[in-house]
Amino acid sequence: MEKSRIDKQFEFCLEADKEKFIKRQTYLSDGINKENDAEHAWHMAVMCILLSEYANDKIDLLKTVSMILIHDIVEIDAGDTYAYDDEGKKTQRMREERAADRIFGLLPDDQKDKLRALWEEFEAGQTPEAKFARTIDNIQPTMLNSATDGKMWSERNIKLRQILSRNKNTSDGSKKLWDYSYHNFILPNIVKGRIKDE
Amino acid sequence: MEKSRIDKQFEFCLEADKEKFIKRQTYLSDGINKENDAEHAWHMAVMCILLSEYANDKIDLLKTVSMILIHDIVEIDAGDTYAYDDEGKKTQRMREERAADRIFGLLPDDQKDKLRALWEEFEAGQTPEAKFARTIDNIQPTMLNSATDGKMWSERNIKLRQILSRNKNTSDGSKKLWDYSYHNFILPNIVKGRIKDE
Repeated sequence: MEKSRIDKQFEFCLEADKEKFIKRQTYLSDGINKENDAEHAWHMAVMCILLSEYANDKIDLLKTVSMILIHDIVEIDAGDTYAYDDEGKKTQRMREERAADRIFGLLPDDQKDKLRALWEEFEAGQTPEAKFARTIDNIQPTMLNSATDGKMWSERNIKLRQILSRNKNTSDGSKKLWDYSYHNFILPNIVKGRIKDE
Repeated sequence: MEKSRIDKQFEFCLEADKEKFIKRQTYLSDGINKENDAEHAWHMAVMCILLSEYANDKIDLLKTVSMILIHDIVEIDAGDTYAYDDEGKKTQRMREERAADRIFGLLPDDQKDKLRALWEEFEAGQTPEAKFARTIDNIQPTMLNSATDGKMWSERNIKLRQILSRNKNTSDGSKKLWDYSYHNFILPNIVKGRIKDE
Protein backbone atom coordinates (compact mmCIF):
# COMPACT_ATOMS: atom_id res chain seq x y z
CA MET A 1 0.00 0.00 0.00
CA GLU A 2 1.29 3.46 -0.93
CA LYS A 3 2.28 5.44 2.14
CA SER A 4 0.20 8.54 2.90
CA ARG A 5 1.55 12.00 2.16
CA ILE A 6 2.09 12.85 5.82
CA ASP A 7 3.76 9.49 6.53
CA LYS A 8 6.27 10.20 3.75
CA GLN A 9 6.91 13.68 5.11
CA PHE A 10 7.58 12.39 8.61
CA GLU A 11 9.79 9.62 7.26
CA PHE A 12 11.97 12.29 5.64
CA CYS A 13 11.88 14.44 8.78
CA LEU A 14 13.11 11.55 10.91
CA GLU A 15 15.77 10.59 8.35
CA ALA A 16 17.04 14.19 8.47
CA ASP A 17 18.04 13.59 12.09
CA LYS A 18 21.06 11.69 10.76
CA GLU A 19 22.59 14.92 9.45
CA LYS A 20 23.52 15.62 13.09
CA PHE A 21 26.01 12.74 12.95
CA ILE A 22 27.94 14.00 9.91
CA LYS A 23 31.09 15.62 11.26
CA ARG A 24 32.93 18.42 9.52
CA GLN A 25 36.57 19.46 9.89
CA THR A 26 35.73 22.85 11.39
CA TYR A 27 36.30 23.39 15.11
CA LEU A 28 33.55 25.11 17.07
CA SER A 29 34.57 28.29 18.88
CA ASP A 30 35.79 26.26 21.89
CA GLY A 31 38.59 24.88 19.67
CA ILE A 32 37.84 21.35 20.93
CA ASN A 33 34.59 20.05 19.47
CA LYS A 34 34.09 19.78 15.73
CA GLU A 35 30.99 20.97 13.99
CA ASN A 36 28.36 18.72 12.44
CA ASP A 37 26.34 19.41 9.30
CA ALA A 38 23.11 20.28 11.12
CA GLU A 39 24.86 22.84 13.33
CA HIS A 40 26.61 24.26 10.26
CA ALA A 41 23.35 24.62 8.32
CA TRP A 42 21.62 26.28 11.29
CA HIS A 43 24.50 28.71 11.76
CA MET A 44 24.54 29.52 8.05
CA ALA A 45 20.77 30.14 8.02
CA VAL A 46 21.02 32.59 10.93
CA MET A 47 23.93 34.37 9.23
CA CYS A 48 22.06 34.48 5.92
CA ILE A 49 19.14 36.28 7.55
CA LEU A 50 21.38 38.79 9.32
CA LEU A 51 23.81 39.44 6.45
CA SER A 52 21.52 39.34 3.39
CA GLU A 53 21.83 43.12 3.00
CA TYR A 54 25.37 42.50 1.70
CA ALA A 55 24.36 40.22 -1.21
CA ASN A 56 25.64 41.54 -4.54
CA ASP A 57 22.22 40.93 -6.11
CA LYS A 58 18.74 41.03 -4.68
CA ILE A 59 17.88 37.60 -3.25
CA ASP A 60 14.70 35.78 -2.28
CA LEU A 61 15.49 35.26 1.40
CA LEU A 62 13.09 32.36 2.06
CA LYS A 63 14.45 30.51 -0.95
CA THR A 64 18.05 31.13 0.14
CA VAL A 65 17.40 30.05 3.72
CA SER A 66 15.56 26.92 2.52
CA MET A 67 18.46 26.09 0.22
CA ILE A 68 20.93 26.52 3.06
CA LEU A 69 18.90 24.36 5.43
CA ILE A 70 18.93 21.37 3.07
CA HIS A 71 22.20 21.91 1.18
CA ASP A 72 24.15 19.22 3.05
CA ILE A 73 21.41 16.64 3.53
CA VAL A 74 22.92 14.37 0.86
CA GLU A 75 25.92 13.96 3.16
CA ILE A 76 23.81 11.62 5.31
CA ASP A 77 24.75 8.99 2.71
CA ALA A 78 27.70 10.60 0.91
CA GLY A 79 29.61 11.87 3.95
CA ASP A 80 31.32 15.23 4.31
CA THR A 81 33.98 15.81 1.66
CA TYR A 82 36.62 17.99 3.29
CA ALA A 83 37.32 21.20 1.39
CA TYR A 84 40.96 20.23 0.82
CA ASP A 85 40.42 16.50 0.08
CA ASP A 86 41.33 16.32 -3.61
CA GLU A 87 40.85 12.53 -3.85
CA GLY A 88 37.42 12.59 -2.23
CA LYS A 89 36.31 15.36 -4.54
CA LYS A 90 36.71 13.08 -7.58
CA THR A 91 33.81 10.85 -6.50
CA GLN A 92 31.85 13.48 -4.58
CA ARG A 93 29.30 14.31 -7.29
CA MET A 94 28.46 10.65 -8.00
CA ARG A 95 28.10 9.83 -4.30
CA GLU A 96 25.93 12.86 -3.69
CA GLU A 97 23.60 12.26 -6.65
CA ARG A 98 22.89 8.74 -5.46
CA ALA A 99 22.21 10.12 -1.97
CA ALA A 100 19.88 12.78 -3.36
CA ASP A 101 17.87 10.10 -5.20
CA ARG A 102 17.34 8.12 -2.03
CA ILE A 103 16.88 10.86 0.54
CA PHE A 104 14.72 13.35 -1.37
CA GLY A 105 12.93 10.28 -2.75
CA LEU A 106 11.40 9.69 0.68
CA LEU A 107 9.20 12.77 0.19
CA PRO A 108 5.94 13.13 -1.75
CA ASP A 109 6.73 13.89 -5.40
CA ASP A 110 6.05 17.65 -5.29
CA GLN A 111 8.35 18.17 -2.29
CA LYS A 112 10.93 15.73 -3.63
CA ASP A 113 11.13 17.76 -6.85
CA LYS A 114 11.24 21.06 -4.98
CA LEU A 115 14.05 20.11 -2.59
CA ARG A 116 16.02 18.32 -5.28
CA ALA A 117 15.83 21.43 -7.47
CA LEU A 118 16.95 23.64 -4.57
CA TRP A 119 19.92 21.37 -3.95
CA GLU A 120 20.84 21.28 -7.67
CA GLU A 121 20.57 25.06 -7.79
CA PHE A 122 22.94 25.35 -4.82
CA GLU A 123 25.38 22.94 -6.45
CA ALA A 124 25.32 24.81 -9.77
CA GLY A 125 25.96 28.12 -7.99
CA GLN A 126 24.59 30.29 -10.79
CA THR A 127 21.57 32.13 -9.36
CA PRO A 128 21.84 35.06 -6.92
CA GLU A 129 20.41 32.84 -4.17
CA ALA A 130 22.88 30.01 -4.81
CA LYS A 131 25.79 32.42 -5.06
CA PHE A 132 24.91 34.02 -1.74
CA ALA A 133 24.31 30.65 -0.04
CA ARG A 134 27.74 29.49 -1.23
CA THR A 135 29.32 32.69 0.05
CA ILE A 136 27.85 32.03 3.49
CA ASP A 137 28.96 28.37 3.22
CA ASN A 138 32.55 29.64 2.93
CA ILE A 139 32.37 32.60 5.31
CA GLN A 140 30.91 30.67 8.25
CA PRO A 141 33.77 28.16 8.68
CA THR A 142 36.35 30.89 7.98
CA MET A 143 34.87 32.89 10.86
CA LEU A 144 35.09 29.83 13.14
CA ASN A 145 38.61 28.95 12.01
CA SER A 146 39.68 32.48 12.82
CA ALA A 147 37.90 32.38 16.21
CA THR A 148 40.01 29.35 17.16
CA ASP A 149 43.17 31.23 16.26
CA GLY A 150 43.53 29.32 12.99
CA LYS A 151 43.76 25.94 14.74
CA MET A 152 42.40 23.88 11.83
CA TRP A 153 44.52 25.74 9.25
CA SER A 154 47.62 25.30 11.36
CA GLU A 155 47.03 21.62 12.21
CA ARG A 156 46.50 20.75 8.56
CA ASN A 157 49.24 22.98 7.27
CA ILE A 158 46.83 24.82 4.96
CA LYS A 159 48.42 27.23 2.49
CA LEU A 160 47.02 30.63 1.55
CA ARG A 161 46.78 29.52 -2.07
CA GLN A 162 44.47 26.65 -1.01
CA ILE A 163 42.22 29.05 0.87
CA LEU A 164 42.15 31.48 -2.03
CA SER A 165 41.38 28.65 -4.46
CA ARG A 166 38.54 27.40 -2.30
CA ASN A 167 37.20 30.95 -2.03
CA LYS A 168 37.56 31.85 -5.69
CA ASN A 169 33.78 32.33 -6.02
CA THR A 170 33.07 33.70 -2.54
CA SER A 171 32.90 37.28 -3.78
CA ASP A 172 30.32 36.26 -6.42
CA GLY A 173 27.65 36.21 -3.72
CA SER A 174 28.92 39.19 -1.76
CA LYS A 175 31.99 41.30 -2.42
CA LYS A 176 31.49 42.95 0.96
CA LEU A 177 31.48 39.67 2.91
CA TRP A 178 34.46 38.27 1.06
CA ASP A 179 36.36 41.50 1.72
CA TYR A 180 35.41 41.38 5.41
CA SER A 181 36.38 37.73 5.68
CA TYR A 182 39.73 38.27 3.98
CA HIS A 183 40.73 41.25 6.12
CA ASN A 184 39.32 40.10 9.45
CA PHE A 185 39.65 36.32 9.41
CA ILE A 186 42.31 35.32 6.87
CA LEU A 187 44.90 38.12 6.86
CA PRO A 188 45.51 38.16 10.64
CA ASN A 189 46.18 34.42 10.51
CA ILE A 190 48.76 34.87 7.76
CA VAL A 191 50.50 37.49 9.92
CA LYS A 192 50.43 35.11 12.89
CA GLY A 193 51.83 32.27 10.76
CA ARG A 194 48.74 30.09 11.20
CA ILE A 195 48.18 30.13 7.43
CA LYS A 196 51.30 29.53 5.35
CA ASP A 197 51.88 32.03 2.55
CA GLU A 198 54.46 30.32 0.33
CA MET B 1 34.65 54.12 19.33
CA GLU B 2 31.29 52.71 18.27
CA LYS B 3 31.68 49.39 16.47
CA SER B 4 30.69 49.32 12.81
CA ARG B 5 27.41 47.74 11.73
CA ILE B 6 29.09 44.72 10.16
CA ASP B 7 31.39 44.21 13.18
CA LYS B 8 28.32 44.06 15.42
CA GLN B 9 26.63 41.59 13.08
CA PHE B 10 29.65 39.29 13.04
CA GLU B 11 30.01 39.56 16.81
CA PHE B 12 26.46 38.23 17.13
CA CYS B 13 27.10 35.55 14.48
CA LEU B 14 30.12 34.28 16.38
CA GLU B 15 28.31 34.42 19.73
CA ALA B 16 25.54 32.29 18.19
CA ASP B 17 28.06 29.44 17.88
CA LYS B 18 27.61 28.86 21.63
CA GLU B 19 24.07 27.58 21.03
CA LYS B 20 25.72 24.36 19.83
CA PHE B 21 26.89 23.69 23.40
CA ILE B 22 23.44 23.91 24.99
CA LYS B 23 22.27 20.35 25.53
CA ARG B 24 18.66 19.27 25.59
CA GLN B 25 17.12 16.18 27.20
CA THR B 26 16.03 14.68 23.89
CA TYR B 27 17.96 11.71 22.53
CA LEU B 28 18.87 11.76 18.85
CA SER B 29 17.59 8.84 16.78
CA ASP B 30 20.63 6.73 17.78
CA GLY B 31 19.30 6.68 21.36
CA ILE B 32 22.77 7.56 22.68
CA ASN B 33 23.65 11.18 21.91
CA LYS B 34 21.51 14.01 23.16
CA GLU B 35 20.45 16.90 20.98
CA ASN B 36 21.73 20.44 21.29
CA ASP B 37 19.78 23.63 20.69
CA ALA B 38 21.34 24.38 17.28
CA GLU B 39 20.51 20.91 15.96
CA HIS B 40 17.00 21.22 17.37
CA ALA B 41 16.43 24.61 15.69
CA TRP B 42 17.75 23.34 12.36
CA HIS B 43 15.54 20.25 12.51
CA MET B 44 12.50 22.35 13.42
CA ALA B 45 13.18 24.75 10.53
CA VAL B 46 13.34 21.89 8.01
CA MET B 47 10.13 20.41 9.44
CA CYS B 48 8.42 23.81 9.38
CA ILE B 49 9.10 24.17 5.66
CA LEU B 50 7.89 20.66 4.86
CA LEU B 51 4.83 20.62 7.14
CA SER B 52 3.55 24.20 6.85
CA GLU B 53 0.59 23.01 4.75
CA TYR B 54 -0.88 21.61 7.98
CA ALA B 55 -0.94 24.93 9.88
CA ASN B 56 -4.44 25.78 11.14
CA ASP B 57 -4.06 29.33 9.87
CA LYS B 58 -2.17 30.77 6.93
CA ILE B 59 1.39 31.56 8.05
CA ASP B 60 4.24 33.72 6.73
CA LEU B 61 6.81 30.98 6.21
CA LEU B 62 9.95 33.17 6.24
CA LYS B 63 8.82 34.78 9.47
CA THR B 64 8.05 31.41 11.06
CA VAL B 65 11.37 29.88 9.98
CA SER B 66 13.26 32.96 11.23
CA MET B 67 11.46 32.73 14.56
CA ILE B 68 12.32 29.06 14.85
CA LEU B 69 15.98 29.63 14.01
CA ILE B 70 16.47 32.12 16.85
CA HIS B 71 13.86 30.92 19.39
CA ASP B 72 16.39 29.24 21.70
CA ILE B 73 19.30 31.66 21.39
CA VAL B 74 18.64 33.10 24.85
CA GLU B 75 19.56 29.68 26.24
CA ILE B 76 23.23 30.51 25.55
CA ASP B 77 23.03 32.41 28.85
CA ALA B 78 19.87 31.03 30.44
CA GLY B 79 20.43 27.32 29.74
CA ASP B 80 17.84 24.81 28.59
CA THR B 81 14.92 24.51 30.97
CA TYR B 82 13.72 20.92 30.69
CA ALA B 83 10.05 20.60 29.81
CA TYR B 84 9.28 18.78 33.06
CA ASP B 85 11.50 20.85 35.39
CA ASP B 86 8.88 22.67 37.50
CA GLU B 87 11.45 24.41 39.72
CA GLY B 88 13.52 25.72 36.79
CA LYS B 89 10.39 27.03 35.12
CA LYS B 90 9.84 29.48 38.02
CA THR B 91 12.95 31.51 37.14
CA GLN B 92 13.00 30.78 33.40
CA ARG B 93 11.38 34.00 32.20
CA MET B 94 13.66 36.23 34.29
CA ARG B 95 16.81 34.38 33.17
CA GLU B 96 15.76 34.46 29.53
CA GLU B 97 14.89 38.19 29.49
CA ARG B 98 18.30 39.05 30.85
CA ALA B 99 19.88 36.82 28.19
CA ALA B 100 17.81 38.45 25.44
CA ASP B 101 19.01 41.90 26.55
CA ARG B 102 22.64 40.87 26.30
CA ILE B 103 22.61 38.62 23.23
CA PHE B 104 20.26 40.53 20.92
CA GLY B 105 21.99 43.67 22.25
CA LEU B 106 25.12 42.69 20.32
CA LEU B 107 23.32 43.50 17.04
CA PRO B 108 22.75 46.89 15.38
CA ASP B 109 19.58 48.46 16.80
CA ASP B 110 17.25 47.61 13.89
CA GLN B 111 18.21 43.91 13.93
CA LYS B 112 18.24 43.81 17.73
CA ASP B 113 14.65 45.07 17.75
CA LYS B 114 13.57 42.71 14.98
CA LEU B 115 15.01 39.55 16.56
CA ARG B 116 13.86 40.52 20.04
CA ALA B 117 10.34 41.05 18.71
CA LEU B 118 10.40 37.67 16.94
CA TRP B 119 11.51 35.98 20.15
CA GLU B 120 8.85 37.77 22.22
CA GLU B 121 6.23 36.78 19.64
CA PHE B 122 7.32 33.15 19.91
CA GLU B 123 7.19 33.31 23.70
CA ALA B 124 3.70 34.87 23.71
CA GLY B 125 2.41 32.21 21.31
CA GLN B 126 -0.54 34.22 20.08
CA THR B 127 0.03 34.79 16.33
CA PRO B 128 -0.45 32.05 13.69
CA GLU B 129 3.34 31.99 13.14
CA ALA B 130 4.13 31.64 16.85
CA LYS B 131 1.44 29.01 17.32
CA PHE B 132 2.81 26.94 14.46
CA ALA B 133 6.43 27.36 15.59
CA ARG B 134 5.44 26.15 19.06
CA THR B 135 3.61 23.19 17.57
CA ILE B 136 6.80 22.19 15.71
CA ASP B 137 8.79 22.80 18.92
CA ASN B 138 6.67 20.12 20.59
CA ILE B 139 6.27 17.72 17.66
CA GLN B 140 9.98 17.46 16.82
CA PRO B 141 11.15 16.03 20.18
CA THR B 142 8.06 13.83 20.39
CA MET B 143 9.02 12.31 17.03
CA LEU B 144 12.57 11.69 18.29
CA ASN B 145 11.40 10.29 21.62
CA SER B 146 9.19 7.86 19.75
CA ALA B 147 12.04 6.94 17.36
CA THR B 148 14.14 5.87 20.36
CA ASP B 149 11.30 3.66 21.57
CA GLY B 150 10.36 6.15 24.27
CA LYS B 151 13.77 5.98 25.98
CA MET B 152 13.65 9.46 27.49
CA TRP B 153 10.04 9.07 28.66
CA SER B 154 10.82 5.71 30.21
CA GLU B 155 14.08 6.77 31.90
CA ARG B 156 12.44 9.78 33.49
CA ASN B 157 9.22 7.98 34.33
CA ILE B 158 7.13 10.53 32.43
CA LYS B 159 3.37 10.25 32.85
CA LEU B 160 0.83 10.70 30.07
CA ARG B 161 -0.75 13.57 32.00
CA GLN B 162 2.60 15.42 31.92
CA ILE B 163 2.87 14.98 28.16
CA LEU B 164 -0.71 16.10 27.63
CA SER B 165 -0.16 19.12 29.87
CA ARG B 166 2.99 20.08 27.99
CA ASN B 167 1.11 19.68 24.71
CA LYS B 168 -2.04 21.50 25.75
CA ASN B 169 -1.49 24.15 23.05
CA THR B 170 0.11 21.94 20.38
CA SER B 171 -3.14 21.69 18.42
CA ASP B 172 -3.42 25.51 18.38
CA GLY B 173 -0.81 25.62 15.61
CA SER B 174 -1.93 22.50 13.78
CA LYS B 175 -4.73 20.11 14.69
CA LYS B 176 -3.48 17.73 12.02
CA LEU B 177 0.08 17.56 13.40
CA TRP B 178 -1.07 17.15 16.99
CA ASP B 179 -3.40 14.37 15.91
CA TYR B 180 -0.59 12.67 13.97
CA SER B 181 1.81 13.03 16.87
CA TYR B 182 -0.67 11.65 19.37
CA HIS B 183 -1.60 8.60 17.31
CA ASN B 184 1.82 7.79 15.85
CA PHE B 185 4.30 8.84 18.54
CA ILE B 186 2.52 8.98 21.90
CA LEU B 187 -0.19 6.29 21.82
CA PRO B 188 2.12 3.40 20.76
CA ASN B 189 4.40 4.25 23.70
CA ILE B 190 1.51 4.10 26.14
CA VAL B 191 0.61 0.66 24.79
CA LYS B 192 4.24 -0.44 25.17
CA GLY B 193 4.38 0.89 28.74
CA ARG B 194 7.08 3.48 27.92
CA ILE B 195 4.71 6.26 28.95
CA LYS B 196 2.83 5.65 32.20
CA ASP B 197 -0.93 6.25 32.03
CA GLU B 198 -1.99 6.50 35.67
